[in-house]
Amino acid sequence: MGKLLVVGSVAFDTVKTPFGEVEDVLGGSATYFSTAASFFTEVDLIAVVGEDFPEQHIEFLKGRGIDISGLERRSGKTFRWKGEYSYQLNEAQTLDTQLNVLETFRPKIPDHYRNPDLLFLGNIDPELQLDVLNQVKRPKLVACDTMNFWIGGKREALWKVLEKVDVLVINDGEARELGQDSNLVKVAQETLARGPKHLIIKRGEYGVLMFNEKHTFGAPAFPLEMVKDPTGAGDTFAGGFMGHLAATGDFSDAGLRRAIVFGSVMASFNVEAFSLDRLRDLDYKEVETRFREFKRLTHFEDLS
Amino acid sequence: MGKLLVVGSVAFDTVKTPFGEVEDVLGGSATYFSTAASFFTEVDLIAVVGEDFPEQHIEFLKGRGIDISGLERRSGKTFRWKGEYSYQLNEAQTLDTQLNVLETFRPKIPDHYRNPDLLFLGNIDPELQLDVLNQVKRPKLVACDTMNFWIGGKREALWKVLEKVDVLVINDGEARELGQDSNLVKVAQETLARGPKHLIIKRGEYGVLMFNEKHTFGAPAFPLEMVKDPTGAGDTFAGGFMGHLAATGDFSDAGLRRAIVFGSVMASFNVEAFSLDRLRDLDYKEVETRFREFKRLTHFEDLS
Repeated sequence: MGKLLVVGSVAFDTVKTPFGEVEDVLGGSATYFSTAASFFTEVDLIAVVGEDFPEQHIEFLKGRGIDISGLERRSGKTFRWKGEYSYQLNEAQTLDTQLNVLETFRPKIPDHYRNPDLLFLGNIDPELQLDVLNQVKRPKLVACDTMNFWIGGKREALWKVLEKVDVLVINDGEARELGQDSNLVKVAQETLARGPKHLIIKRGEYGVLMFNEKHTFGAPAFPLEMVKDPTGAGDTFAGGFMGHLAATGDFSDAGLRRAIVFGSVMASFNVEAFSLDRLRDLDYKEVETRFREFKRLTHFEDLS
Repeated sequence: MGKLLVVGSVAFDTVKTPFGEVEDVLGGSATYFSTAASFFTEVDLIAVVGEDFPEQHIEFLKGRGIDISGLERRSGKTFRWKGEYSYQLNEAQTLDTQLNVLETFRPKIPDHYRNPDLLFLGNIDPELQLDVLNQVKRPKLVACDTMNFWIGGKREALWKVLEKVDVLVINDGEARELGQDSNLVKVAQETLARGPKHLIIKRGEYGVLMFNEKHTFGAPAFPLEMVKDPTGAGDTFAGGFMGHLAATGDFSDAGLRRAIVFGSVMASFNVEAFSLDRLRDLDYKEVETRFREFKRLTHFEDLS
């Protein structure tokens, strides 16, 4: 089993959807990612929280077997995000962002974290992503996420990161902005020519596409009767994806496809409840059952 | 090989997309449908055109082996539609609709059409769809399409149609309006409880979903480097779907899944050029090749 390192955010989220609202619940990209990945492998977490971060959340992460010796606690308040979703649940409207301790965050990698097999660079400033890359021995596989804010504002630093990563995981709006084209096949050609070997484009309720030099893989999202809160779906997807890759060490096209389906499965559970609540009571048998359902969902017979 | 009957529109389309524009080109739901279906089976066509409909289009349809003895020619002008697409090619903005001879169209089924194996009721007034159903011996499989205009304006007549059909083929916006819910799984449950055995939801560039009592099937759209004009994609999908079903007579879940992929393949070709131009020079070998590519696109290994 490979060691997986993630750097990202730990947050308090206040979220309203047509199906309810929650205040200051556990959130953040590194939280969703590491919790999802912990179903498959050991995870080392790098993030920062403030003095207001309660012991119960620490205990939850520890309980998932996540190594939190890289979770820095600083004076000040924890990062806070407030968002709202309409009935069309695919995109959040951000109502408020308070960076707090995240504003001056400089990831420091503990010595025993410096030799990961896989590394996930969550959505933070591309300069910090580069900084993390410089602090570790080159992992077997590096993946990263980003967002429009950095694509627009730190384009050059971002391309420097992308030259060094194996997998870029972004949503379709971000992909179009990065590639400056509305056609995702052209965006993929452009992006793959400049860095990452694999481009994974998340499309929310519409599923996911993966492009690499030789192959394209497409999968729908798992159709759900109840989507309560899409917050964290992308990070949960990435966690399931990287967690499964860490567990198998199979980075072939077939291995990546399976990992994408595991990521989709984890995301499909996560959106069934607010915060990480569905992942709290999920067991691995349910994950495998839904993977098999996913196979039945997408299977059709080839021509003879 | 089963006989397939389609009723729908034949039109002149004026279309502008970011990749070009065309004026008064061949279009209409029955045109796209029957041309796509003609790659798989014999098609009987019911539609109406005006005195302005040129011989070259008649010859094209005949050349595809389509029986056009049900193509009524009336005094007046042919139905005209004018639309425009932005870079986000998923939805057209209708600029002008001139019903012309379609306004007083009452489908009359020639005697030798009255015993079809499969029937597709294209997007026309639900009362006319009922009228067509009453004029034929109950086919082995009936599918229909509709649109928001009828869902809003002739809801009761539409439900009467849906009670009598096996497959409803609509897009996701229409599905949400029909089921009065934003969640497609709930829409499917509601719809299937009231009539059709299978609900197929077209999602444009995001692919397609099929729901029936026992199964759900999901497939992405084929990723294309060039989408020039999405006009007619939905009808081309339906034509490939029904044409393949007519050719095999296999209406099992597995048969329907394969037919959906053939429909997706035909639609993926159609959007590569304006009007039906890509279908004009397409041969069946290319259809099979893309079907196999579609299998590679979506395949992943199941758990052992």
